[in-house]
Amino acid sequence: MNHRGETAAPAALPAVPLTLEGSSVLHQMFRIRRAEWRRQPAEARERMLAEAEAALSGMGAHSALFHVLGHKADLLVLHFRRSMEELGEAELAVAGLELAEYLEPANSYVSVVELGLYESSRKTYESLAEKGVAPHSEEWNRAIEETLGRQRSAMAARLWPEIPDSKYLCFYPMDRRRGEEKNWYRLPMAERQRQMHEHGMVGRRYAGEVRQIISGSIGLDDWEWAVDLFADDALVFKKLIYEMRFDEVSAVYAAFGSFLVGLRLQAGGLKGLMEARRAK
Amino acid sequence: MNHRGETAAPAALPAVPLTLEGSSVLHQMFRIRRAEWRRQPAEARERMLAEAEAALSGMGAHSALFHVLGHKADLLVLHFRRSMEELGEAELAVAGLELAEYLEPANSYVSVVELGLYESSRKTYESLAEKGVAPHSEEWNRAIEETLGRQRSAMAARLWPEIPDSKYLCFYPMDRRRGEEKNWYRLPMAERQRQMHEHGMVGRRYAGEVRQIISGSIGLDDWEWAVDLFADDALVFKKLIYEMRFDEVSAVYAAFGSFLVGLRLQAGGLKGLMEARRAK
Amino acid sequence: MNHRGETAAPAALPAVPLTLEGSSVLHQMFRIRRAEWRRQPAEARERMLAEAEAALSGMGAHSALFHVLGHKADLLVLHFRRSMEELGEAELAVAGLELAEYLEPANSYVSVVELGLYESSRKTYESLAEKGVAPHSEEWNRAIEETLGRQRSAMAARLWPEIPDSKYLCFYPMDRRRGEEKNWYRLPMAERQRQMHEHGMVGRRYAGEVRQIISGSIGLDDWEWAVDLFADDALVFKKLIYEMRFDEVSAVYAAFGSFLVGLRLQAGGLKGLMEARRAK
Amino acid sequence: MNHRGETAAPAALPAVPLTLEGSSVLHQMFRIRRAEWRRQPAEARERMLAEAEAALSGMGAHSALFHVLGHKADLLVLHFRRSMEELGEAELAVAGLELAEYLEPANSYVSVVELGLYESSRKTYESLAEKGVAPHSEEWNRAIEETLGRQRSAMAARLWPEIPDSKYLCFYPMDRRRGEEKNWYRLPMAERQRQMHEHGMVGRRYAGEVRQIISGSIGLDDWEWAVDLFADDALVFKKLIYEMRFDEVSAVYAAFGSFLVGLRLQAGGLKGLMEARRAK
Amino acid sequence: MNHRGETAAPAALPAVPLTLEGSSVLHQMFRIRRAEWRRQPAEARERMLAEAEAALSGMGAHSALFHVLGHKADLLVLHFRRSMEELGEAELAVAGLELAEYLEPANSYVSVVELGLYESSRKTYESLAEKGVAPHSEEWNRAIEETLGRQRSAMAARLWPEIPDSKYLCFYPMDRRRGEEKNWYRLPMAERQRQMHEHGMVGRRYAGEVRQIISGSIGLDDWEWAVDLFADDALVFKKLIYEMRFDEVSAVYAAFGSFLVGLRLQAGGLKGLMEARRAK
Repeated sequence: MNHRGETAAPAALPAVPLTLEGSSVLHQMFRIRRAEWRRQPAEARERMLAEAEAALSGMGAHSALFHVLGHKADLLVLHFRRSMEELGEAELAVAGLELAEYLEPANSYVSVVELGLYESSRKTYESLAEKGVAPHSEEWNRAIEETLGRQRSAMAARLWPEIPDSKYLCFYPMDRRRGEEKNWYRLPMAERQRQMHEHGMVGRRYAGEVRQIISGSIGLDDWEWAVDLFADDALVFKKLIYEMRFDEVSAVYAAFGSFLVGLRLQAGGLKGLMEARRAK
Repeated sequence: MNHRGETAAPAALPAVPLTLEGSSVLHQMFRIRRAEWRRQPAEARERMLAEAEAALSGMGAHSALFHVLGHKADLLVLHFRRSMEELGEAELAVAGLELAEYLEPANSYVSVVELGLYESSRKTYESLAEKGVAPHSEEWNRAIEETLGRQRSAMAARLWPEIPDSKYLCFYPMDRRRGEEKNWYRLPMAERQRQMHEHGMVGRRYAGEVRQIISGSIGLDDWEWAVDLFADDALVFKKLIYEMRFDEVSAVYAAFGSFLVGLRLQAGGLKGLMEARRAK
Repeated sequence: MNHRGETAAPAALPAVPLTLEGSSVLHQMFRIRRAEWRRQPAEARERMLAEAEAALSGMGAHSALFHVLGHKADLLVLHFRRSMEELGEAELAVAGLELAEYLEPANSYVSVVELGLYESSRKTYESLAEKGVAPHSEEWNRAIEETLGRQRSAMAARLWPEIPDSKYLCFYPMDRRRGEEKNWYRLPMAERQRQMHEHGMVGRRYAGEVRQIISGSIGLDDWEWAVDLFADDALVFKKLIYEMRFDEVSAVYAAFGSFLVGLRLQAGGLKGLMEARRAK
Repeated sequence: MNHRGETAAPAALPAVPLTLEGSSVLHQMFRIRRAEWRRQPAEARERMLAEAEAALSGMGAHSALFHVLGHKADLLVLHFRRSMEELGEAELAVAGLELAEYLEPANSYVSVVELGLYESSRKTYESLAEKGVAPHSEEWNRAIEETLGRQRSAMAARLWPEIPDSKYLCFYPMDRRRGEEKNWYRLPMAERQRQMHEHGMVGRRYAGEVRQIISGSIGLDDWEWAVDLFADDALVFKKLIYEMRFDEVSAVYAAFGSFLVGLRLQAGGLKGLMEARRAK
Repeated sequence: MNHRGETAAPAALPAVPLTLEGSSVLHQMFRIRRAEWRRQPAEARERMLAEAEAALSGMGAHSALFHVLGHKADLLVLHFRRSMEELGEAELAVAGLELAEYLEPANSYVSVVELGLYESSRKTYESLAEKGVAPHSEEWNRAIEETLGRQRSAMAARLWPEIPDSKYLCFYPMDRRRGEEKNWYRLPMAERQRQMHEHGMVGRRYAGEVRQIISGSIGLDDWEWAVDLFADDALVFKKLIYEMRFDEVSAVYAAFGSFLVGLRLQAGGLKGLMEARRAK
């Protein structure tokens, strides 16, 4: 494949696509120290649960709890906030709960909701190039800011989302590969845009069944992106991700981290998870 | 090798094979905290064992216990359920046992029993293409649903299996490789179908000796598939997997996770494993 | 290199070499919790040592103890048994010792003594092919069983060995590589047989100094084979393995796990290792 | 690409670029044992905090504290010192705090502030070669020392920096890749210098927003370099590093370790982090 | 590159270079459990320190202590001994100290001081080949033994070294790579000898500043070699290893493990490290 620009002009365009950023996101995964928890007197457990539920429900639709299947974690607490600083406060708010003594941190992920604008990056870059505007010149920067500003308003709801109220969560981090032969970051933008578009087409067929929130984590955590999928049927996660794995962008350029499935805990559900006693 | 479709039509066919899904599966691996267990009074241990045995035998043929050889785990609890939600309940039922205080989670695996229909995918896709039915059109979707529905009935026993009552279990997760040169997800479906068929031929020769249950875990856990083999002679695991390793699909495209061998614990066998005292 | 068979017939021969299996093998590596051990009264320690020594010496030449150098483990217990089930019993017998409370499992390995019959596989396969006997036909299977039966008798001592009484043990697991270019499992049998033969020639020169026991672990543990070397001079391990590393089969196709060196503990040596006090 | 020198002379030039070294740097990451901390009486906690704050503020602008987001650590203590020996003292000073009993070491990094002088290395080497001065001759060494001496004075402030007082820190270690095909250490110096220059051009556009301190750690810790970025807006980390990832030197030759984001703790902020109770 | 021998004779020469072996070496890395240590009464701590210092100083110049920077370890104890058996005794001597209860094993390394004789291997092999002496014949073995014997006497001081009394230690393990394309063990000996020679030339320029001790660990621990560097200026480690990284043998064929830097603890220095209290 010929990846080097065929004409001089496109080769000089920026390689990085425009992105919009919204909520700062923290995934906290905990193991529950149930043996220690159970040794506490019933009234102490009730008091700690009441404090925790008040604090967590006070966070509204910007924090949510999930029962994670398997040994990787028991509880996932998901926070969407206005800034990294507020994420720090949310983290301390959880750590400050009396109940936190019975939660052992097992994993976490720090990221920022991101919309990748491959389509409009390509259009804007090409149109500016046709007008002879040099990349990173003042005029260029002004035009880019205008484009971003327009999209930022249009996409506010996707940039600052509430946590969907679905039954199941699927979470995983991922990278784009930089292999010796197959290196995503060396592909020309038009080729990356084409592959991302094809990838998006698969997702669109699942639109009614899955809600997807992508967050970026380059410079913030160990993978480049994180994916949260929300659905009422966990099988849809498997079907969607399996189908996408055959897309060129996934088959060739995706590296995946660890996958987690969680069951949404509704208000009052924390007690059942801490106690691990089924209602009799 | 020429992997790109030789004619235009097949190239446009979906790359993902049809699958059928059945039981949701949870493997739980625990280390036993024997020092703490033994410090409990005999009557407390009897009470805890009685509770655990009642709970586990109440789960019938949809949960089973295994003594795992080596340090990776002491006890494996295997659950087959109707849904992820029921798996969550099974997990809490185990965690809620008094005896669970002496079980330290060491590993786990979340998956769904899966039958990959490479053969009928290929036939159905090709026959629909010959009729000029466009992939993902309404007519296409109806035809696919019919195919799946027929197979789902025919294969109900394999989709919703009881746990075989064999003496030994072999468990491991696996991926199909996406290497720079050798990438399973870039092979045309006909080639993948051919390799899977060849692979299946080897398995067939072991049919009387080994029962195999494949489950899919893309989007659910860290590998793409999990394999459970059940046999009355553990050597058969080694012979079967060694022979298969020379198949093209395994030799070139398989990546394997950690392998576990377990001895089936029969009713009442939990006590012997917890106490680790041989009958005198 | 041309790895594809030059004539049609050999290409159709089975790729998997014949193997013979003997003793089931368990390596158990433990760290000693010496601080807790020392806090026990002298008479309790004596009682626990006496129980452990009685149990272990009761296992005869089919279990042995080693003092492992370095932090990976303090104590290695090696078991050779008639079956996986007996290995499970041996594991429980150790876990059931009162002293086991002071042993923390650090690692382990499950395998089966294996003799790979590359030479006679090749001869048998070729001779059957010349006679026109189809692989896996009844006649074929009968001939294979005869070959195996003859060898099984001739090699009984190597299949069911006692643990050599040498001063030092070297243990490591290994795989044959399945790289994108260099893939052991895609080589024709004659080529594999040639490389294994060359490899064996090096080993033969060390025959008087090192005793080697190979066990297979495909389907049983995380690597494909395990190697135990026994010698009275630990330098021989380094010399032998360094020399072999230049063999084609090791240089190109071997992947190695973690290496352990152990000093054989003679009867009564367990006390010195547990106490870690030199005789004064 | 033709990487071998086109003329004989340059090929004989040293491949290693000149570097200047300044402060010795230690990153210490700790998890806070909050359950144990809270069990201490209020006055003991006040006493321990007072001791810690006195010790840390006594370190002036050469040590700083950060609240790390996520489970990898709670507290990062960053030290810049005159020598490795002083780093050792700083480490003991922290370990000697009464409060250190509640800090569990989770990670760390040892490095030395480094300025890579690709530009002047190339010029100096080429100019000495033109004069016919042999590499590593006395005359050569004298000329190199002069070049380094001049730069060392000019860059003293960058070599021995105070810790910037920004709100956010981003820390990560990295390597230059030595792949089978793409090997940074086999590129000719002129090519490496060109790529580093292009890389620096991106950084320059972020000069007002991010302060970057590079430290070298070959021979000192597990990666070749460490990067500390300081900014008042954490999104800038993501934007800068994403944009740089498309540079040839990052896209092809960079391997990255784990990324950490920290919030600068101001004087008195340690209490809030230890207690994890928000002001009410 | 043409790696296969150009003439028949050299191709038949052994590929493995001659080596000489000396001291058996054990690196022990410990974390200090300072919280528990401090809880001991002052007189108990003095008693334990006195015992430890007596034992360790009784080991003379064949054991030494280092304060390791960073979280990987606090204390490194380095032992040079006459045999693996004596290493086992040294390990038990440390484990038998009362103070060892406050040392948690974090890492270790087992190896043997090794001098690789590439130069004389090549000469000897070629000269024997010219005389028509067949490899591994009796005559050959006798000639090799003579060569080794001569060198063994000449190099006794390097084979059985005292631990240099420098201020800093740098320790790391390493492998020679066996990549699909770039495989050290498939290079002809003359090529390996040339690269090792070039590599040695760099080291020679640092001779006055760094003392290097190479030990071999094939078959003994997880990497093929270990490197100990001793210097009075820690920056020299970085400069030497950075410069060497551009050598062909390092750039292309070296894989490196974890790097540790330690500060030599002089007699009486153990107390300061255990207590972590600076003199006031």
